[in-house]
Amino acid sequence: MLSWVDGRPAQAASLTDRGLAYGDGLFETIGIKGGQPQLFDRHLARLAEGCQRLSIPADLALIRAELLAFAAEVGEGVAKLMLTRGDGLRGYAAPASATARRILLASPFPAYAAANAEQGVRLFPCATRLAEQPLLAGLKHLNRLEQVLARGEWRDSDHAEGLMLDVSGRVIEGVFSNLFIVRDGQLITPELDRCGVAGVMRAELLAQAKTLAIPLSIQPLSLEQLLAADEVFVCNSLYGVWPVTALQGHRWPVGPLTRKLQSIARDLLDC
Amino acid sequence: MLSWVDGRPAQAASLTDRGLAYGDGLFETIGIKGGQPQLFDRHLARLAEGCQRLSIPADLALIRAELLAFAAEVGEGVAKLMLTRGDGLRGYAAPASATARRILLASPFPAYAAANAEQGVRLFPCATRLAEQPLLAGLKHLNRLEQVLARGEWRDSDHAEGLMLDVSGRVIEGVFSNLFIVRDGQLITPELDRCGVAGVMRAELLAQAKTLAIPLSIQPLSLEQLLAADEVFVCNSLYGVWPVTALQGHRWPVGPLTRKLQSIARDLLDC
Repeated sequence: MLSWVDGRPAQAASLTDRGLAYGDGLFETIGIKGGQPQLFDRHLARLAEGCQRLSIPADLALIRAELLAFAAEVGEGVAKLMLTRGDGLRGYAAPASATARRILLASPFPAYAAANAEQGVRLFPCATRLAEQPLLAGLKHLNRLEQVLARGEWRDSDHAEGLMLDVSGRVIEGVFSNLFIVRDGQLITPELDRCGVAGVMRAELLAQAKTLAIPLSIQPLSLEQLLAADEVFVCNSLYGVWPVTALQGHRWPVGPLTRKLQSIARDLLDC
Repeated sequence: MLSWVDGRPAQAASLTDRGLAYGDGLFETIGIKGGQPQLFDRHLARLAEGCQRLSIPADLALIRAELLAFAAEVGEGVAKLMLTRGDGLRGYAAPASATARRILLASPFPAYAAANAEQGVRLFPCATRLAEQPLLAGLKHLNRLEQVLARGEWRDSDHAEGLMLDVSGRVIEGVFSNLFIVRDGQLITPELDRCGVAGVMRAELLAQAKTLAIPLSIQPLSLEQLLAADEVFVCNSLYGVWPVTALQGHRWPVGPLTRKLQSIARDLLDC
């Protein structure tokens, strides 16, 4: 498996890295096709926002160049970038001298069942709730124990994704996806100002919907609203769009707006 | 700097470790004196509880033996144990084959000013609030971005610790300490069922207070109660007890129960 640390091939990272010690860093999981990173500008924009909000000083031009070189070597697959605050010995205070560390890992494209995109998926109702932390909301940071706990709740292959609510019971997202509903022709996705990860495909679909003049709302979403939806789908930057057809006993049809956005996502990912 | 991975000297850990990827693990920071780990049984008990709550399968007898051997090599200083869920390639689901990884790092004892224990400390009022996540509350896990953000709020040496409230405004703890108040002869410490780290020294002082028949309450604590306290102190397993004498414009005296528990902590830490 190809992997680089700070631009050089490496299989291991320092034990004093603050990414390991505290999850003090960010990550991006980027599809690679024909040696090119997909949705590259959006991934870089989210990373830049994360660096700014967590005060991680990073050379974004260097990261861009390095990802392009890494993608060219990978060819087809997935590149995971972890950007940590670098080394520290002990204690939460970041050393004044800390330099962000760039870790790149290649892996094969995940082997999702074709049926997920074609027939749609069933969501597992996760009991793990997302805590509300506005300072971290939206970021793809390295503190992901909530997702680990949620993903540990089911092992069967009947559920391709899990539904996560926040501690107040609002619908937020999937474990590794964002969620949208369609109701009376309007596209609705939960606001992510208190928890959740603002996904790159979510941002892309919101931009596309705007371009297509599809009525759009980013708002708090209740479980009742989810159940009353005409269409439901989840998305991420690797698989694009999966229609959601079931949550426990509830069923949704696969609707036309879902198919339209799925087709747009497929074109974006060129798959 | 002495460091071991899975019982052998090493300076680096696998890039695919889930501790790095997701903060999927636990840690303990243990004082070492005369080659012996301090408050060892309490550290191991907390680790065992963390493993149980996060479903991390770990060989606790092996960890105990390894820590004893490591402490003997360290002699004097601090041993930090990070116990991660081991390797995984990508995705939140833990591989069925994942084996917990043991990482041990030695460092010198922190150079705290003697005045912290003698005259007491001033707390920095952290704006970073702790999110409420009952599934993780009390655990010393590797998702510590909130503490990183809080500790990044001040750089001056006038504040030896910071005060952290939860998102609802309740008083919870210091950034790297637990907090107690004394009011009308009663010892009070915040309950940690929704956030916070249940420290080893906190547990030890609670046990000692019970033995000494000191009236004791573990309860939600408001900022008003903190300000109205007769005495305030913070504690952890490395420095013992520091009296708290100031928070912004507010002052507290160093009281007799604080001194008594400080003396007990000093005996426990044999310093």
